[in-house]
Amino acid sequence: MKSATATLLISCADSPGLVAKFANFIYANGGNIIHADQHTDFSTGLFLNRLEWQLEGFNLPREAIATAFGAIAKPLEAKWQLHFSDTIPRMAIWVTKQDHCLLDLLWRWQAGELNAEIPLIISNHTSLKAIAERFQIDFYHVPITKENKVEQEELELELLSKYDIKLVILAKYMQILSPNLIANFPNIINIHHSFLPAFPGAKPYHRAHARGVKIIGATAHYVTEVLDEGPIIEQQVVHVSHRDTIADFIRKGKDLERLVLSHAVRLHLENRVLSYDNRTVVFN
Amino acid sequence: MKSATATLLISCADSPGLVAKFANFIYANGGNIIHADQHTDFSTGLFLNRLEWQLEGFNLPREAIATAFGAIAKPLEAKWQLHFSDTIPRMAIWVTKQDHCLLDLLWRWQAGELNAEIPLIISNHTSLKAIAERFQIDFYHVPITKENKVEQEELELELLSKYDIKLVILAKYMQILSPNLIANFPNIINIHHSFLPAFPGAKPYHRAHARGVKIIGATAHYVTEVLDEGPIIEQQVVHVSHRDTIADFIRKGKDLERLVLSHAVRLHLENRVLSYDNRTVVFN
Amino acid sequence: MKSATATLLISCADSPGLVAKFANFIYANGGNIIHADQHTDFSTGLFLNRLEWQLEGFNLPREAIATAFGAIAKPLEAKWQLHFSDTIPRMAIWVTKQDHCLLDLLWRWQAGELNAEIPLIISNHTSLKAIAERFQIDFYHVPITKENKVEQEELELELLSKYDIKLVILAKYMQILSPNLIANFPNIINIHHSFLPAFPGAKPYHRAHARGVKIIGATAHYVTEVLDEGPIIEQQVVHVSHRDTIADFIRKGKDLERLVLSHAVRLHLENRVLSYDNRTVVFN
Amino acid sequence: MKSATATLLISCADSPGLVAKFANFIYANGGNIIHADQHTDFSTGLFLNRLEWQLEGFNLPREAIATAFGAIAKPLEAKWQLHFSDTIPRMAIWVTKQDHCLLDLLWRWQAGELNAEIPLIISNHTSLKAIAERFQIDFYHVPITKENKVEQEELELELLSKYDIKLVILAKYMQILSPNLIANFPNIINIHHSFLPAFPGAKPYHRAHARGVKIIGATAHYVTEVLDEGPIIEQQVVHVSHRDTIADFIRKGKDLERLVLSHAVRLHLENRVLSYDNRTVVFN
Repeated sequence: MKSATATLLISCADSPGLVAKFANFIYANGGNIIHADQHTDFSTGLFLNRLEWQLEGFNLPREAIATAFGAIAKPLEAKWQLHFSDTIPRMAIWVTKQDHCLLDLLWRWQAGELNAEIPLIISNHTSLKAIAERFQIDFYHVPITKENKVEQEELELELLSKYDIKLVILAKYMQILSPNLIANFPNIINIHHSFLPAFPGAKPYHRAHARGVKIIGATAHYVTEVLDEGPIIEQQVVHVSHRDTIADFIRKGKDLERLVLSHAVRLHLENRVLSYDNRTVVFN
Repeated sequence: MKSATATLLISCADSPGLVAKFANFIYANGGNIIHADQHTDFSTGLFLNRLEWQLEGFNLPREAIATAFGAIAKPLEAKWQLHFSDTIPRMAIWVTKQDHCLLDLLWRWQAGELNAEIPLIISNHTSLKAIAERFQIDFYHVPITKENKVEQEELELELLSKYDIKLVILAKYMQILSPNLIANFPNIINIHHSFLPAFPGAKPYHRAHARGVKIIGATAHYVTEVLDEGPIIEQQVVHVSHRDTIADFIRKGKDLERLVLSHAVRLHLENRVLSYDNRTVVFN
Repeated sequence: MKSATATLLISCADSPGLVAKFANFIYANGGNIIHADQHTDFSTGLFLNRLEWQLEGFNLPREAIATAFGAIAKPLEAKWQLHFSDTIPRMAIWVTKQDHCLLDLLWRWQAGELNAEIPLIISNHTSLKAIAERFQIDFYHVPITKENKVEQEELELELLSKYDIKLVILAKYMQILSPNLIANFPNIINIHHSFLPAFPGAKPYHRAHARGVKIIGATAHYVTEVLDEGPIIEQQVVHVSHRDTIADFIRKGKDLERLVLSHAVRLHLENRVLSYDNRTVVFN
Repeated sequence: MKSATATLLISCADSPGLVAKFANFIYANGGNIIHADQHTDFSTGLFLNRLEWQLEGFNLPREAIATAFGAIAKPLEAKWQLHFSDTIPRMAIWVTKQDHCLLDLLWRWQAGELNAEIPLIISNHTSLKAIAERFQIDFYHVPITKENKVEQEELELELLSKYDIKLVILAKYMQILSPNLIANFPNIINIHHSFLPAFPGAKPYHRAHARGVKIIGATAHYVTEVLDEGPIIEQQVVHVSHRDTIADFIRKGKDLERLVLSHAVRLHLENRVLSYDNRTVVFN
């Protein structure tokens, strides 16, 4: 078994010595780095760093790490996150009627591929309630209409708070979230069934078929206020031909959607994704 | 050596018996079919067919085939083309300054992968003249400005006519063709450096980088009046990461562009592509 | 809804007029062909044909089709199969302990992607019994040892017979079938976790990792007497890097395995696969 | 323009503090790291590191770097290489008759994609001499027979020495090198036209076709004494179908071969590849 690790995700203005400075912090406290990766965006002068080290043998107690590293980060005006591999984040999945992305996430969760707890599923329909029950996950039916959207989103935010949710996965949740909801809960991953920026919005497979494309795709991205324009985490495509009907596009697309979404969720849960400037750095 | 073949490309309204009817035409005249493929678009009720057979042993003399098949096609109001594999079409390549697509086409042409004559290269710059000379292809420098565009396109059309050109390849020709030119010479294949419909128009790699996409692509399509909206023949993509700069996008994209364009040109020259309704059927 | 169709899969020595002859059989009886594809292997002189047509409006009653077509096929010494889309074949799935391929097949089956009945699951372990129960499929535990293999395979053959099974899917069934079993039930599809012919036999991911490959793959094939050497239906690969451990190979490979196996099963059930000479023709 | 950089490639037994130690060496001397990547192979306990930094502003003169770093590396028993981006390595290309890999390398070289000098082409045939002349590269015809192989390889080694060659590219050089040659010049990259370990040795496309595979591939690897078993740098594949003849395999394979070989050469020339234990780490 891998012993517990700590991971730092850091971003700050580039300057000489950052690689050494951050690695030294680990080393000076007796830590053994098992993964280190960094990236400099030379066009914006931003330095991004991921450091993962074993907690066993580290001289700082884990509750003191944030304070100690904060003292280093402050003069650099660095943004940073600290994660412990044995502090399992709580994740909610929001769905509508389609089960393929939900089942794929739950299967991987059971198989140990996703380091998360999943205590909550929310849906604007009841079709997938039986799946939630089978996996013993609480299921809430929150139907949305134009008229009740404001109140229902309040209810959803309360559920996220009550269940102490840190990450929401939109696994084919066919509703547009309001800016208010996103402002109150910014940590949301969505799967969109096209290779963005082609075909944002509704019915991308129908529009792809009408355009006569030879490839279709799927995109996992963080949700921002502008529909389907948030930072892209992962994209995959598959070839199609004139023999493929819209039904074939949808069937092939489902395979893409579940693989792309699951992979993006895994990357996020392993603390491998940093966003800036509406893009992501994926340290994999 | 493969002996000479004839190829029929047919499209007409679907009705029972078309596969048998067209195959019978070949068989009744003693022909040996070496490739037959068909497709029915059930949404529009269109039937499309490709038939290729050996001319050796075929009882109709080749100059009589069109008349004989025309009699069958007329009551069906079918559109059709007849090609002979030993009637080599004449193709012109239009370029600006980048050499990669041009060199790739010429290398394949020399290697026997493209069944065409290439007597003419046109460019709005002189940078690639030496390549034309090396391959002993006539090179015309036709600079284009806002002011002279109408006359220069007339000159280009005259060159196409003088050289008896049947197909024009825009191999990174960085000019928008006028509707008049396209109306007068409709058989043009272009390579666009994005997975259309994402990023039509100028600077797609820059825009793809700004958007933070995880895949880039290239698209070969027939040219129509609306920029980058003609029927798509072929698309390919390649993965990119946060480490890839715009220069890397351009470098990786060049490999895509030359493969996608060359493949589309080959498919066209083998008479495997039928267009309808702003899409293509590729019988490969 | 698509109405019921009939499909002929034909192979025979090539000769002029076969495309017309077989299409005429459909047309002369008033049938409307919705898919026709053919292939000639010029190295062996074999002609292969797939014809699918609507039964509605076809003048021959379906019970007379085999006799009528047999009269055409006989002088050609053609091998042929006749399938009706509403005669649903019965399929058994054999597993050991891993659930990913089984769950993927069952999910697609429920989603209507696989045109089969699945009345029987056989396993040499009991781990996956609960899944069988959830889907209300009969589950038989048939443990295999060196000593009891002969008798246990007899039992398996009896089960196949009792359940009227037409196709067996080895969905990570980690046992080598005896020549006797294969001789008695030749219609078996297996998933092997490598891009064959690399790494046949045991522990392919371990050996791929030891070799330092940059791609791993999965292969679906018909089972023949020689281990992992039967006709290949479908292969897919995924890139790996030095960061990927054997555990990562296995995890990434599971995604490949379920996609490749499910796709091969779907192709088979749609009667799109013809085998000859230890290879397949896939009319898709 | 990017200013000149230095790159260290280091491998040694893993121990705490290595990331910090090596980064500190750069930082303590005022260097600005522009790329740092590392990998630990936990199964063997080996640590591998790539560090690239700008020479401008670095306090150590470049001729002193090796000595200074050597003092750090010695107690760790580390193997290491030091490269300067403006010290352009000299590379020879060995060919037989096929031109596609050679032309692709030369086109990329002219386009500035390969940071090397190419003063020497060696061939056992004369077919490609004109290409060498066009690019003003010295061409030597060194025909090989069973009888003269020992002497001719001596001649080849003399040419490598005379031209001060640091890297040899076998760009479809259809001869097996003797252990003696490899022992005397170990820095050789080969392109093999299969996805190794499938189909090592002669005629891989013919054997792939005979096996009925659905994918073909190409592999770039360092040459070792055992044929086609050296460390793999890069692999790519392409799908094939029953329609593809051996000639199609060869044609499609040529595109793979030139892309895979060129990419591997580029990675090597950018000092991104470290070999150990018959495998590679590619820091890209």
